[in-house]
Amino acid sequence: MIVPLNEYDFLKRALAVYGDCEAIVSGDLRLTYRQFGERVNRWAHVMRALGVEKGDRVAIISQNSHRMMDGFFGAPLIGAVYQPINFRLVAADFEYILNHAEAKVLIVEDFLLDTVEGIRGNLTSVKHFIVHTDDSGARHEGRQGWRDYEELLAKGSPAPPDEVQIDENETACILYTSGTTGRPKGVMLTHRNLYINAMNSIIEFGLNHSDVYLHTLAQFHCNGWGLPYAVTGVGGKHVIVSKYEPASFFDLATREKMTFACMPPTMINMALNHPMGEEERNHLPRNVRIGTAGSAPPMALIKGMQERLGWQVIQIYGLTETSPFLTVSKVKPHMHVLSAEEKLRVQTRTGYQMLGVDIRVVDEDGKDIAADGVQVGEVIARSNVVMAGYWRQQEATDAVIVDGWFHTGDMATIDNEGMIEIVDRKKDLIISGGENVSSIEVEGMLYKHPSVLEAACIAIPDEKWGEVPAALIVSKPGMQVTEQEIIDFCRGNMAHFKCPKSIVFVDALPRTATGKIQKNVLRDKFWEGRGKRVN
Amino acid sequence: MIVPLNEYDFLKRALAVYGDCEAIVSGDLRLTYRQFGERVNRWAHVMRALGVEKGDRVAIISQNSHRMMDGFFGAPLIGAVYQPINFRLVAADFEYILNHAEAKVLIVEDFLLDTVEGIRGNLTSVKHFIVHTDDSGARHEGRQGWRDYEELLAKGSPAPPDEVQIDENETACILYTSGTTGRPKGVMLTHRNLYINAMNSIIEFGLNHSDVYLHTLAQFHCNGWGLPYAVTGVGGKHVIVSKYEPASFFDLATREKMTFACMPPTMINMALNHPMGEEERNHLPRNVRIGTAGSAPPMALIKGMQERLGWQVIQIYGLTETSPFLTVSKVKPHMHVLSAEEKLRVQTRTGYQMLGVDIRVVDEDGKDIAADGVQVGEVIARSNVVMAGYWRQQEATDAVIVDGWFHTGDMATIDNEGMIEIVDRKKDLIISGGENVSSIEVEGMLYKHPSVLEAACIAIPDEKWGEVPAALIVSKPGMQVTEQEIIDFCRGNMAHFKCPKSIVFVDALPRTATGKIQKNVLRDKFWEGRGKRVN
Repeated sequence: MIVPLNEYDFLKRALAVYGDCEAIVSGDLRLTYRQFGERVNRWAHVMRALGVEKGDRVAIISQNSHRMMDGFFGAPLIGAVYQPINFRLVAADFEYILNHAEAKVLIVEDFLLDTVEGIRGNLTSVKHFIVHTDDSGARHEGRQGWRDYEELLAKGSPAPPDEVQIDENETACILYTSGTTGRPKGVMLTHRNLYINAMNSIIEFGLNHSDVYLHTLAQFHCNGWGLPYAVTGVGGKHVIVSKYEPASFFDLATREKMTFACMPPTMINMALNHPMGEEERNHLPRNVRIGTAGSAPPMALIKGMQERLGWQVIQIYGLTETSPFLTVSKVKPHMHVLSAEEKLRVQTRTGYQMLGVDIRVVDEDGKDIAADGVQVGEVIARSNVVMAGYWRQQEATDAVIVDGWFHTGDMATIDNEGMIEIVDRKKDLIISGGENVSSIEVEGMLYKHPSVLEAACIAIPDEKWGEVPAALIVSKPGMQVTEQEIIDFCRGNMAHFKCPKSIVFVDALPRTATGKIQKNVLRDKFWEGRGKRVN
Repeated sequence: MIVPLNEYDFLKRALAVYGDCEAIVSGDLRLTYRQFGERVNRWAHVMRALGVEKGDRVAIISQNSHRMMDGFFGAPLIGAVYQPINFRLVAADFEYILNHAEAKVLIVEDFLLDTVEGIRGNLTSVKHFIVHTDDSGARHEGRQGWRDYEELLAKGSPAPPDEVQIDENETACILYTSGTTGRPKGVMLTHRNLYINAMNSIIEFGLNHSDVYLHTLAQFHCNGWGLPYAVTGVGGKHVIVSKYEPASFFDLATREKMTFACMPPTMINMALNHPMGEEERNHLPRNVRIGTAGSAPPMALIKGMQERLGWQVIQIYGLTETSPFLTVSKVKPHMHVLSAEEKLRVQTRTGYQMLGVDIRVVDEDGKDIAADGVQVGEVIARSNVVMAGYWRQQEATDAVIVDGWFHTGDMATIDNEGMIEIVDRKKDLIISGGENVSSIEVEGMLYKHPSVLEAACIAIPDEKWGEVPAALIVSKPGMQVTEQEIIDFCRGNMAHFKCPKSIVFVDALPRTATGKIQKNVLRDKFWEGRGKRVN
């Protein structure tokens, strides 16, 4: 018997088995799975009433919210394509992404209402504008053409909608991600992708019905790494964190008896820098696992989490294009002979392949490099977690999926334990605090400044964010411009996480014989003395 | 990207990640995953050399053995169909099954060589007869037409064979079920069936690379419930138990530091009846999980395992037709308020649906019965773990898979926790004076009596009530007990209409080759001369 794999099944099971158990905690709101399921049904009916048909894109721009959860399960229930968008982007990004994906419905959190209102006239496909707010729906009053999320929901039936036939290989969501090209690309993940990734999450994090999961990680980031599905499938509890901030995080973790959270290294760093009294520390939950990814966690962060808080860190690695989990880095049983320090070192490495993921590290001819932990090659993957492709960008898809293998663009060593360690990036990509930044996009912005003659954007190491964008600039003859002016110019026109944190003015940029800027030469200075070129 | 789900991938991952870790312990033999993988490759080459092509059946009749493990992974590696056969069957059964499945290759453990030799002339499809033995291959010397397994293996290349294209929905194995009536049927399980079932095993038993799994459960029983795949996928260790016997089981569990085993209730019963000194008990491994299935475990068995040995029991339920796992019975977090006794009671219940399994309990019109824990209906399932069908028995397949739902033939209640409890086989339900009586429940009570070794409850005709429960009992050696004592014991502990009205003491209960009590044989006597078996 073949039953299409569908991420909605994770909620279906929770409804059958954990109906009266707490599903979601969000501020003062507490929902059982039965109540959550009814909200999802209502949302499905609302979408249908708005004319959403199978395959239509339903976009949302929001911080973490239980309303984003409605979409994670409401969309597959009627075969709609969910499209969570990074709320840290700027209006021009939203416009491009929404038009490119041809989204039919757009839900926006209230704090972005003005921003989106400013581009409404340019949105070519969106038929319905919905605002969600915790402020009793007051914010959109008097706004023409906007509807309130909860008002709509109240009108939808809580009964399950008519079933729709779904092929597991159809697109379940589109997630725009920045790459080496200036424009973001829409990663199409299928129901099968999401299902298998969520199963792997359950397995590697050992999730079960006793788990209390804090949504610290942004839900728009590859569907919160698939945890909304995984935690639901095992009947665990979701605790929504709309905005991560260490003090309230520790409060909530303590109050709700957190057992599990996912935190990019920057969040861990913030947590460890949070001053904590003995009393507060004594009340922290025990037996906590922290999943981390987005960039390599420095050993001090893992050590701090494990030794100071007593929380176990599990590093995973992946990309939006891979749903996202590819590898996990755990200390294997036979490594018990290692010293505590050596075990920590193992945990900082990128990791070994998860179940159902084939990982290879290959040279430029596509041949496996030696598994000696020294040679460096590109990480490629073959798995059911690899995306179907980039939305309407076949060429870009063909560039990364070659002969049945997905090319990550990440350069790594591999050892005889099957353990990879990423040491460099093939593509010209900056990953800052877990966010992809296209250096080409940044350079494009720099070139718009009237004083800039030439510009190159590279990643430089940063204590807090792992790496941050920095720019090397040749200014136009006779023009006077300061570092702060350039930075301010960028911040006024693009998402803040993309803006260069420092500017170096130079007389000329090093180029190859063919005129290409030699970014590796530029980076050499900043990464000198480090074993690798990425953080 | 779509990569066919294939149970061989579980070994592929172990080879990539756990190559130098111990994979299999079998007597004095200890193999790392690398060594095991080489044996599997050798076996794949041997099969190819013998002319085994994609889809060909390769049968094995054997007790648990590391050589059966070769087949679990060697078959999917070349697309052969694995066919483990119950070694407790008789020659006529072997003949029927092998001819019906048209097996091309047959591997037989040495102790069955004479038995199979006796029917060799009748086997119409088998081209190659192979004997496996731990006795240096001596036993088949002088036997015409038999080849030694290890001699063949030594000739095969340890390198991976050429890849073969596999559709995940193709048949991976055929398992003949021992029906109590009629000819056995060949259950066809696909690669996808086995893969999803193994993922669910990992999730529900919480398997990981620290696990040491004892193969107590027969490997021919639905591929050892899929644990050979699951344990391999997470890089755990397999310890082969060729023949279960309590004393050596406890020795091996202690020596190898067992963490996990699967034991049907009869095995648990034997283990608990094994006399054990304080010293021996003190050395038993801790943190052990015991999966149990096959029949409902009486509360006394779960209690004995958990309180006397400190081993956690996890009951699962399923059928060969469902790969086999459908439900699992764990005490949910919100049940912590229950008493210890009530929690044990929860564990004896059949359980709730696993991830990716839809379970319903329906009346004769196919409508869901009330989830009140009282009404009884048939358990039906919809899942990727449901078989493709019975080999060359379309009619039998159509009788059990109706409108996309598999009909288990098991009758159960379901409560508002989604927890089902099987109260009888579809044709083995007692209806006395209009009241439903579960023979399993009655048996559970009988087993609580200190003098009862084995018990079976059946319906017998009754003038007044239509039918009433009666019990057949094997009393413990040296114990004296009367019919009235047993009846009084039941009446003191359960509703009077449920209590056996008569007790027959017997020396043994008739069982099928797989150990299932043949209730139809028992009932025959009591219903003789009547046109029907229910009143």
